[in-house]
Amino acid sequence: MHITAQHFRVGDVPGVRWCAGGDDAPLVLLGHGGGQHKLAPSVVARAQRVVTNLGFTAIAIDAPGHGDRPRDPEDERFVAAIRARTEPLGPLVADYNAALATRAVPEWQAVLDAHPGHGPVGYWGVSLGSALGIPLAAAEPRITAAVLGLVGTEALAAAAAKVTIPVRFLLQWDDELVPRAAGLAVYDAFSSTEKTLHANPGRHAELPPWEHDSAERFLARHLRHP
Amino acid sequence: MHITAQHFRVGDVPGVRWCAGGDDAPLVLLGHGGGQHKLAPSVVARAQRVVTNLGFTAIAIDAPGHGDRPRDPEDERFVAAIRARTEPLGPLVADYNAALATRAVPEWQAVLDAHPGHGPVGYWGVSLGSALGIPLAAAEPRITAAVLGLVGTEALAAAAAKVTIPVRFLLQWDDELVPRAAGLAVYDAFSSTEKTLHANPGRHAELPPWEHDSAERFLARHLRHP
Repeated sequence: MHITAQHFRVGDVPGVRWCAGGDDAPLVLLGHGGGQHKLAPSVVARAQRVVTNLGFTAIAIDAPGHGDRPRDPEDERFVAAIRARTEPLGPLVADYNAALATRAVPEWQAVLDAHPGHGPVGYWGVSLGSALGIPLAAAEPRITAAVLGLVGTEALAAAAAKVTIPVRFLLQWDDELVPRAAGLAVYDAFSSTEKTLHANPGRHAELPPWEHDSAERFLARHLRHP
Repeated sequence: MHITAQHFRVGDVPGVRWCAGGDDAPLVLLGHGGGQHKLAPSVVARAQRVVTNLGFTAIAIDAPGHGDRPRDPEDERFVAAIRARTEPLGPLVADYNAALATRAVPEWQAVLDAHPGHGPVGYWGVSLGSALGIPLAAAEPRITAAVLGLVGTEALAAAAAKVTIPVRFLLQWDDELVPRAAGLAVYDAFSSTEKTLHANPGRHAELPPWEHDSAERFLARHLRHP
């Protein structure tokens, strides 16, 4: 299989599109984690699953203030605040991520507008990828299935209540950034008829490898024969 | 593939053993639900997955007071009490299941003694199958992986704390028999390094079909190359 990786820019937003074949293949939007970017190893690994294993198309972009994008004064203030603190990081990260979401949702929508003609669209992103992805899934009807998780705030629970598509929600039982009850409350809030919670022991960054296999199967099931 | 189904009896306990091939194949013990028996449709469906899809051996037995086994006065008392009540059934079922477990654990162990020579051993049973299966997994070191769920009592949480093998734990978010917090407490209590919670919307008997696929893969992963 020949895979192409095309870099693009939509407005100020740099992105990359991985493609294995047909223009009508399903498309998966990949949201990176906090402090990461569109070509972070975890994003590229998911792109390989989506494109090589499933034959779908994948798109990743840099979130505001991340990757190749400049940091504005708000980004700088949050990054400095996060670096200066030790514990608890959770509320600080949650505030910053909520601010990023208001910028990121219209950016993702513009990227979708700029890439017409694909098959069904899914979203796959946890942590910051869900702080942006849950408001996006709530606002954007072109997205029809989403792998989300590792977040838990009241604002995200409110956004989750507007989501009705099939959702896979990942939760780390010993997450040092997301209180367990707050993560469970986001799962509870989704209005989706189909929503599955997968919880595992471990800290925020310790998602076990079989959850990636399982997320891939979830997207295959919902996007291949929707 | 030629599948044989052999009926057997170990002491007073009637059982059936499905086998596709080698005597050294992994073995999965199948625990049926309350009011069901060793040849209930849900048990046979799991046996087909384990034997046809995985090439493993499967064994199911009738729980005390179930299937081809006589009811003793304790069974009759509980059945009458359960039939006479409408709500809440949960505590009544939990008490009866706990009583059954003290009888069922040594019976499963005798069945294992009577079937030596197989590969790694797993257990797959939810609801009553877990009310008996969690104490069994806590007591029986031959069992090395288990699919459990749809239960939540303090006694089972205490038994779960003695379980250290990889566990898949299923929870129905709107279970009318098992309070959500009680189910989460059982998951929390397992001492296993690897334990994954899968939660889905719906009532006690509404486990979605993809969880059976996923449970099959879990057992394949742990029993085929342990």
